[in-house]
Amino acid sequence: MAVGKNTTAFHQVAGVRLASVPCGIKPGRDDLVLLEFAEGSHTAGMFTRNLFAAAPVIVGKRHLQAASPRYFLINAGNANAGVGDLGIADALACCAALAALAGVDEAEVLPFSTGVIGERLPVGKIIAGLQGAMAGLDQDHWLQAAKGIMTTDTRPKLATRQAVISGKTIHITGMTKGAGMIQPNMATMLSYVATDLGAATATLQQCLAVAVNKSFNRITVDSDTSTNDSSMLTATGAAGLDVDADPAALEQFQELLNEVCLELAQGIVRDAEGATKFVAVTVRNGQTEEDCLAIAYAIANSPLMKTAIHASDANWGRIVMAVGKAGVTLDINALDIFLGDVQLMDAGQKSPEYTESQGAAVMAAEDITITIDLNAGSATETVWTCDLSQEYVRINADYRS
Amino acid sequence: MAVGKNTTAFHQVAGVRLASVPCGIKPGRDDLVLLEFAEGSHTAGMFTRNLFAAAPVIVGKRHLQAASPRYFLINAGNANAGVGDLGIADALACCAALAALAGVDEAEVLPFSTGVIGERLPVGKIIAGLQGAMAGLDQDHWLQAAKGIMTTDTRPKLATRQAVISGKTIHITGMTKGAGMIQPNMATMLSYVATDLGAATATLQQCLAVAVNKSFNRITVDSDTSTNDSSMLTATGAAGLDVDADPAALEQFQELLNEVCLELAQGIVRDAEGATKFVAVTVRNGQTEEDCLAIAYAIANSPLMKTAIHASDANWGRIVMAVGKAGVTLDINALDIFLGDVQLMDAGQKSPEYTESQGAAVMAAEDITITIDLNAGSATETVWTCDLSQEYVRINADYRS
Repeated sequence: MAVGKNTTAFHQVAGVRLASVPCGIKPGRDDLVLLEFAEGSHTAGMFTRNLFAAAPVIVGKRHLQAASPRYFLINAGNANAGVGDLGIADALACCAALAALAGVDEAEVLPFSTGVIGERLPVGKIIAGLQGAMAGLDQDHWLQAAKGIMTTDTRPKLATRQAVISGKTIHITGMTKGAGMIQPNMATMLSYVATDLGAATATLQQCLAVAVNKSFNRITVDSDTSTNDSSMLTATGAAGLDVDADPAALEQFQELLNEVCLELAQGIVRDAEGATKFVAVTVRNGQTEEDCLAIAYAIANSPLMKTAIHASDANWGRIVMAVGKAGVTLDINALDIFLGDVQLMDAGQKSPEYTESQGAAVMAAEDITITIDLNAGSATETVWTCDLSQEYVRINADYRS
Repeated sequence: MAVGKNTTAFHQVAGVRLASVPCGIKPGRDDLVLLEFAEGSHTAGMFTRNLFAAAPVIVGKRHLQAASPRYFLINAGNANAGVGDLGIADALACCAALAALAGVDEAEVLPFSTGVIGERLPVGKIIAGLQGAMAGLDQDHWLQAAKGIMTTDTRPKLATRQAVISGKTIHITGMTKGAGMIQPNMATMLSYVATDLGAATATLQQCLAVAVNKSFNRITVDSDTSTNDSSMLTATGAAGLDVDADPAALEQFQELLNEVCLELAQGIVRDAEGATKFVAVTVRNGQTEEDCLAIAYAIANSPLMKTAIHASDANWGRIVMAVGKAGVTLDINALDIFLGDVQLMDAGQKSPEYTESQGAAVMAAEDITITIDLNAGSATETVWTCDLSQEYVRINADYRS
């Protein structure tokens, strides 16, 4: 199941080559992905805040401090998480093998893993796959790479933009994966965005933080935060534009990056485990961002709200319940609630014009918007989520993540 | 579905009479329940902290301030919640009609409702049922009453104790209902406990707070907090023992009350919507109660943990994920994790003796214990929950609560 359409089109990014090969962790499909960045590229990264950060997250953060990455080595099917110091050693062994093959420093390789938690990484399989991956590197392999990093995802997720900034044609292309264990905290499951404009690492880090905070950090499938969340942004500089010294260009880049990250993050929700609906929950006119987010997440993570959405039931009693349990102090007599454009609640009372058939018409769509107006301030936040289906339970009872 | 056995035995409580009749809100079954307390009884109550407290909660709290209740009037099938001031008027109309019939003051009647949120209470049906309910009052009708307050519950939930305290034989009997929208915050869906010992209202309130805090406030089915949660404790004094002036007797009473409330609360989890497993999550040796509870609820409310439990999968990667996302600062290298008596994790590493077959044996049982030892302090908390099944989704996609 997946909600809405999906793009498989992309712009190549000069200075970035990708490869996807099978190494036998997930039999019968590609499961090892390699990204190569031209010398002089800069990379920013954000990683999970789960205390049990996976070994590749620990190693990746360390390597990112030490050098500018030339390679990302990503495997699907095994998260290399929850195995203690052995996991660190395994991740380092993979980095070392690739570094030797590619003639770069070990710290110039960043490892990423996604899949089952708590099992040793099959290092032998990964190392055996490296030569084929190196040989397969190509600027045109974004779609193959986006497929190669999938786990319970049903489709590859890409987002892409081309623009002319300060007279130069630049490109931003990103891919992501993730379908369950999704309430990212500082990043998503795995996402990789690259651009051919140039920027210093510190600039990229700041741009990434802004973009992630309004995209990957605003989605939830099941309220669970992964041990492996990583969100990366790399700039190769191949387009001949450096944004560090060009504030107007930087601003345009930030806007495009925000769009790409939001499209990727929404792509995760649209392809979430068992999802049949895509839901935007907006809480507006709150006193603080925190108030708005607390209420939005209370709705977006409520199992009763999510099952009602699954049933296309305009069950506004459950919206009211979720608002009320969010722990936010508010005047319920100031509250307006809308389903799509239909007003359900007016100043804390059921809207006199509201009819069940109006609500049912909104809920029948695949894309649904729920808006809570607190009429208390000027903060507004939106969170994206999906429904909770029997299929979600089936997938996660059958699949060991 | 329901997990484990259920008691239908109970001790009568002198001074308490009950009746259960059909009034047509839930066709084909009893849906209107009346409890009568002898003159001189005292009652304590705790109510939901959901901001959208239902009309009966608002009226009940007000009446409890004004008088000692002589009657509880409870309907199933309609929550009388989310309908604004009309709900208050409807609840008061029911109280007034019963008060007239019984010859008591309106404030001596407490209303309770459970069922669909957002629809007007069918006041006419309830008032039409009052005469039959009055005529049916009997000390022996606890089981019928426990059935009459059910909604998606599959079985009535009773708990009962008899003891000799200070030379007097006393009884405590309680009933509860609730199967979904369960993460009570200060009380559960609906629970009623009565005793024939005597106590002042303030004493009862204190005893109830202690008991509820370790029972109804320690369970979660789906993390959702109802708009109608109410937990009541009434003492009739008919047994001729007053605990107010007898500290030793009060202590014994408190212990029995704790047992009754815990049995009722666990009864809700065992009968939770779609439940096939009953799970105790204990977090011990934490620095604070709050730390222990945050981690216990992170595990107990994690959809991925609950689906793994449903599948009898000893998926300890998901336990680790949930501990790590709880937002508690802790030393993961001090952490021990046990499934039943089997140690999974030893000082932050997978236990070398652990085998999958040991874990699978624990998870195959209906009753499962998960223990997290933080080795950081002396606080310990336990939360009870159930698994997440496709049946839960089916029930809540089909049923409008």
